[in-house]
Amino acid sequence: MKPRVGHIQFINCFPLFYGLIEKKFLLEIELIKGNPTDLNRMLAGNLLDLAPIPSIAYARNYRDYVLMPDISVSCDGEVKSIYLFSRLPIERLHNKKIALTNISRTSQALLRILMARCYNIAPEYFQSAPELGAMLMEADAALLIGDDALRARYKTRDRLYIYDLGQEWKNFTGLPMVFAVWAIRRDFAHNHRDELKLIRDTFTDSIKFSLECIQDCAAKASQWEDFSADYLVEYFNSLRFDFDPRKQEGLLQYYKEAKNQGIIDEVPPLEIIDL
Amino acid sequence: MKPRVGHIQFINCFPLFYGLIEKKFLLEIELIKGNPTDLNRMLAGNLLDLAPIPSIAYARNYRDYVLMPDISVSCDGEVKSIYLFSRLPIERLHNKKIALTNISRTSQALLRILMARCYNIAPEYFQSAPELGAMLMEADAALLIGDDALRARYKTRDRLYIYDLGQEWKNFTGLPMVFAVWAIRRDFAHNHRDELKLIRDTFTDSIKFSLECIQDCAAKASQWEDFSADYLVEYFNSLRFDFDPRKQEGLLQYYKEAKNQGIIDEVPPLEIIDL
Repeated sequence: MKPRVGHIQFINCFPLFYGLIEKKFLLEIELIKGNPTDLNRMLAGNLLDLAPIPSIAYARNYRDYVLMPDISVSCDGEVKSIYLFSRLPIERLHNKKIALTNISRTSQALLRILMARCYNIAPEYFQSAPELGAMLMEADAALLIGDDALRARYKTRDRLYIYDLGQEWKNFTGLPMVFAVWAIRRDFAHNHRDELKLIRDTFTDSIKFSLECIQDCAAKASQWEDFSADYLVEYFNSLRFDFDPRKQEGLLQYYKEAKNQGIIDEVPPLEIIDL
Repeated sequence: MKPRVGHIQFINCFPLFYGLIEKKFLLEIELIKGNPTDLNRMLAGNLLDLAPIPSIAYARNYRDYVLMPDISVSCDGEVKSIYLFSRLPIERLHNKKIALTNISRTSQALLRILMARCYNIAPEYFQSAPELGAMLMEADAALLIGDDALRARYKTRDRLYIYDLGQEWKNFTGLPMVFAVWAIRRDFAHNHRDELKLIRDTFTDSIKFSLECIQDCAAKASQWEDFSADYLVEYFNSLRFDFDPRKQEGLLQYYKEAKNQGIIDEVPPLEIIDL
């Protein structure tokens, strides 16, 4: 059976997809698309062999998984797709209501960490469907991620304070932030080392290819979206797809902070398979 | 939004997929895989814009759809993947039990037509999961289709009588048999003529490409399957992917026979969109 590989159907993973098409790699793997939360559930249920999952999900299920080397969805400063949109300067959000997109636990945790640790303030959080207008009817600020955040940033003409959580994390820790990691089911990993090596090589080659012809890649991504190609070039350039030691350090720091906030029970080891 | 296009995840549609990968067409459409019955349900539920669906499903829902020209899954004689496996010669199956794969209504109807009209016999039919061994524990004959039928034909060493329903239909009518047609939602068809033209052109080019390099295509298809490449070359060569006037005639003849057997209420018009 072909390896069953999850794929995040957000624009942030388009450079990977674009390269996989170029390399005709969908003849070698079964690529199953979904949002990170769905992929996490499918991986846990053995409907996938490996998948990008939210960083926080790895912390909660690490015993069942090992990590793919050399690939992640990260940033090192601005991420341009995880924003707090606020009617007030962030310092004045103490005791105010913040609506959190209900599709990301990793970013929710990141916001809580930053609020508690950088700004020393305690807003009142509640979860909401990711629609900025509706969120700001009920709250003073709203957290959006992914395509929702990109769109809101691109379209919103309201006078809002906008905070990029990748940049906030960088200011706080000096480190990159890792949003998603590629987790491999432990049982699969032990019996499919050759396939995993091929997948790792093709994934890193695919991203390299797309970043080398980033204008073409962005033009194709913009074809069915509301964004200009130029905007997507900027966006893709702000993302990081590798998983080098600094990314790993950033991820462990995030886990430590999340544990201190009581969001996860323990800091998981980063068990990266050696391919 | 990219056109949402269904794809039959059977080996019989691999030549189409292989060509789509070669032409990098998955950057232009959202390809959603499934079996024909699932695709039919998703198309009806507006989760897809167009999809290959079983011929019998088109007859039941034709008011909502128009047909894509120039493409079908058909045969003109042997189909090599729709078999009746029988312990007895077919003429002796009167009043005997026949287990029918529960994943195909089109082939079930075809078998009923052939039994009634060619052999003038009335077996007792019941539906079953598509597993030959289990089916033949409870029945004297079993109908399998698609990959199940291919596998059973390839592996079975039992002494069984094997009837190819494509060939039986050809013997009976002199006509091709059409198993699946590409149906387009009527609302989508009227507003997306340019996309549909591109899809039609790319689909027919893709199949042409794959049949021209059929050894490579079959080798790739056999990589994750139990079949040899040579077996798949033979199989692909027995299939027909066009939808010429003879195929249309065969399809209408099938609908007439199905109506006479009380399987469908009316013979639907073949409303093929002019692209």
